[in-house]
Amino acid sequence: MPNKRGTLMRHLLMLSMALNSVLILRLIYTSGISWEAEKSLQGFCMAENQEIGKVVVASSSSSSGTSTDGRIPDENGGGKLINLGHGDPTMYAKFWHQMGNKTTLVIPGWQSISYFSDVKNLCWFMEPDLTKAVIRLHKLVGNAITKDRHIVVGTGSSQLFQAALYALCPAESSEPTSVISAAPYYSSYPLMTDFLKSGLYKWGGDAHKFRKRKNQAYIELVTSPNNPDGSIRQAVVVNGSDGIVIHDLAYYWPQYTPITFHADYDLMLFTVSKSTGHAGSRIGWAVVKNEEVARKMTKFIEVNTIGVSKDSQLRAAKILNSVADTYDYSGNAKEEGAAFFEYSYGVMNKRWNQLKEAVRKNPIFSLPVFPWSYCNFSGRKFESQPAFAWLKCEGEIEDCEKLLGDHKILTRGGKHFGFSSKYVRISMLEIEENFDIFTDRLSRIHVAGSG
Amino acid sequence: MPNKRGTLMRHLLMLSMALNSVLILRLIYTSGISWEAEKSLQGFCMAENQEIGKVVVASSSSSSGTSTDGRIPDENGGGKLINLGHGDPTMYAKFWHQMGNKTTLVIPGWQSISYFSDVKNLCWFMEPDLTKAVIRLHKLVGNAITKDRHIVVGTGSSQLFQAALYALCPAESSEPTSVISAAPYYSSYPLMTDFLKSGLYKWGGDAHKFRKRKNQAYIELVTSPNNPDGSIRQAVVVNGSDGIVIHDLAYYWPQYTPITFHADYDLMLFTVSKSTGHAGSRIGWAVVKNEEVARKMTKFIEVNTIGVSKDSQLRAAKILNSVADTYDYSGNAKEEGAAFFEYSYGVMNKRWNQLKEAVRKNPIFSLPVFPWSYCNFSGRKFESQPAFAWLKCEGEIEDCEKLLGDHKILTRGGKHFGFSSKYVRISMLEIEENFDIFTDRLSRIHVAGSG
Repeated sequence: MPNKRGTLMRHLLMLSMALNSVLILRLIYTSGISWEAEKSLQGFCMAENQEIGKVVVASSSSSSGTSTDGRIPDENGGGKLINLGHGDPTMYAKFWHQMGNKTTLVIPGWQSISYFSDVKNLCWFMEPDLTKAVIRLHKLVGNAITKDRHIVVGTGSSQLFQAALYALCPAESSEPTSVISAAPYYSSYPLMTDFLKSGLYKWGGDAHKFRKRKNQAYIELVTSPNNPDGSIRQAVVVNGSDGIVIHDLAYYWPQYTPITFHADYDLMLFTVSKSTGHAGSRIGWAVVKNEEVARKMTKFIEVNTIGVSKDSQLRAAKILNSVADTYDYSGNAKEEGAAFFEYSYGVMNKRWNQLKEAVRKNPIFSLPVFPWSYCNFSGRKFESQPAFAWLKCEGEIEDCEKLLGDHKILTRGGKHFGFSSKYVRISMLEIEENFDIFTDRLSRIHVAGSG
Repeated sequence: MPNKRGTLMRHLLMLSMALNSVLILRLIYTSGISWEAEKSLQGFCMAENQEIGKVVVASSSSSSGTSTDGRIPDENGGGKLINLGHGDPTMYAKFWHQMGNKTTLVIPGWQSISYFSDVKNLCWFMEPDLTKAVIRLHKLVGNAITKDRHIVVGTGSSQLFQAALYALCPAESSEPTSVISAAPYYSSYPLMTDFLKSGLYKWGGDAHKFRKRKNQAYIELVTSPNNPDGSIRQAVVVNGSDGIVIHDLAYYWPQYTPITFHADYDLMLFTVSKSTGHAGSRIGWAVVKNEEVARKMTKFIEVNTIGVSKDSQLRAAKILNSVADTYDYSGNAKEEGAAFFEYSYGVMNKRWNQLKEAVRKNPIFSLPVFPWSYCNFSGRKFESQPAFAWLKCEGEIEDCEKLLGDHKILTRGGKHFGFSSKYVRISMLEIEENFDIFTDRLSRIHVAGSG
């Protein structure tokens, strides 16, 4: 079974290399993404890997040159397979190249060898420089309150999510605490919650459908802006003192959505993966009000991995500081085009305009509409331009993932997010060249009998 | 690029000069592990933190200057509290400083930003340079077979231990798989196994006392050399096809024990924390025979932390290579005193001689005796000089941890290892100054009525 898949992957790798060897070389240089990478990357954070298999089969079946609707795939991209099923945030690489040595990390062999970072800190393995940089950046952007809060560092926000569940679920409870989130929800929440069959917590599904029993403990996950649909969210079940909420604010940054208020929730998760695009460093942080919760989250990370890589913490500190350094004290860009959130806003804005244009041309598809809001950070009024697009197939098309797969566009279908298969999640973070091929191809997809 | 690189090197040169001056301060910090540090550090990897509290109270109660046996603590160290309850491996810092810039890691801001490292590798988030360095070092030392094995990187070997449990325990099993280890066993195994109340596995205690029910699934943990007692171990319950074994070989390196054979077990765990002393990087690796097991371990790390810090992987690769570089092709030190395992052997040897001398002077204490063996790597015949000493209190002393605590020596009592409280585990990895105070103090501990 793994062999079969492996062979298939190799075939497709050869195909895509033959189709565009120059691109592959460039990818290896910039982000290392190749065919198998796309498969593996689709693999991660998805409950059923078989799903990928299906898509692959669908696409390879049309690698003969004909797709299920009998038409020859468009010439642009030479029928190359475009994987938008994941969110490898490589689109800011150019900016970091521009920054040159300003963000270069240098660590001699004798440095950071101890398990400890700051023994006076509740989170004893967190580098003080990172704590300072996190607080500085939140203060600059104005997206979260950090005053009198505990900051806990994690190996990406995935580990912090699990640490939060551990900290918030009573160990002595007779039954596991239910973990819920309003659909469409982040596709890996169910797997991250259930993969160890924990007696502390279990996945409870769509918050809208959750029927709370008397005295039943539960935790609601609120991702805002939401992955996959980009909507700005509030808890739908938890109100007031009843229930607990974990706020995943990974995308609450000014390149994705207007910063309209200082978030001040009990437990907020952030990550460098989406804020600056440094996914490879695996650094996330939690901003926590309650000391005991912060202490238990720290304990989870202590038992799970005995702390978090100091090398990556120091690198993240340097990068977050370099972002803040591109702004003056009043929050204005010091230099046109050299300010990170200006650059990243520009990248996302260009892509969204391109996608909207393609969708406008094609009645088969539609996109969510976001309200225009004033961004307190940039002083600009704009509508959200999320890291993912939640594309809908209109009319009688029931399986949007399949339709796009037939046109060699890999996406993640609505079912993975506890929602309708008429929807797919599309990564807006792909490298530019692939994104251009995608939007052109999307605008020209035709389904027999439609339009 | 050549220009960029040129600038980079100049930049690096300047930085390294600055770093050298910072070093002195740094060393002061490292050597001066504060009170809270000792407390926090004891905190990690211990099931019952209250225990620490007790020890702390005991020691601080005697900070008045009188200990329970009514004698003034020795002048040496001025009654300073010495924490040997943990194993923060800072004792090789001097060596890494001698290496200067040879082991300095330099990462520009645009590098390693993707989630991916090697998409053709089963463990897609493992840096190829690290894989190569790991294989190279095992080949040089001859402590493990890596040919035709899968290498899986983890955020320290703690994460790999949990990944191994996830990979080896059948998900469909009606009851959790029992995880056992012969006492005295590593004190954090029980907590790491049970803290999430997993339905996949549960702590089964001392392997010697394990009574296997018919068809009962179980996993035996074998740490060799063993933490805490340094003994060379084999599985005591598992034989042949029955049962599964995880081998933790974190201490199977030539500074701790003679390398007598190429380990070739199904699943072996290693870590840079104990091999080179770089605990802050949180890098461990597993050498795995079975492809499906390696795949499931990779899946665990994908769901738990979406991979492992690339920055630390690159740093670990550089450090492991620099260790190998100090030897020629026939495995001989290129330069006297500049070869890592020669240096680290010397450090451990000096400390063990010092400890044995102190114990010889004091009839209250005894140490395990290790057989002399020929080390295939160094060509030297010596007895094991483990990272921890398993000290026994003789006669009527029942609580060895308490006795030493009264003399301001923090250790980890035998009970934490599922064994008798007449024993304590003592870290041999403390900085030299504290270790000297400890041995001197130990040699002069007197108990009313004894000897």
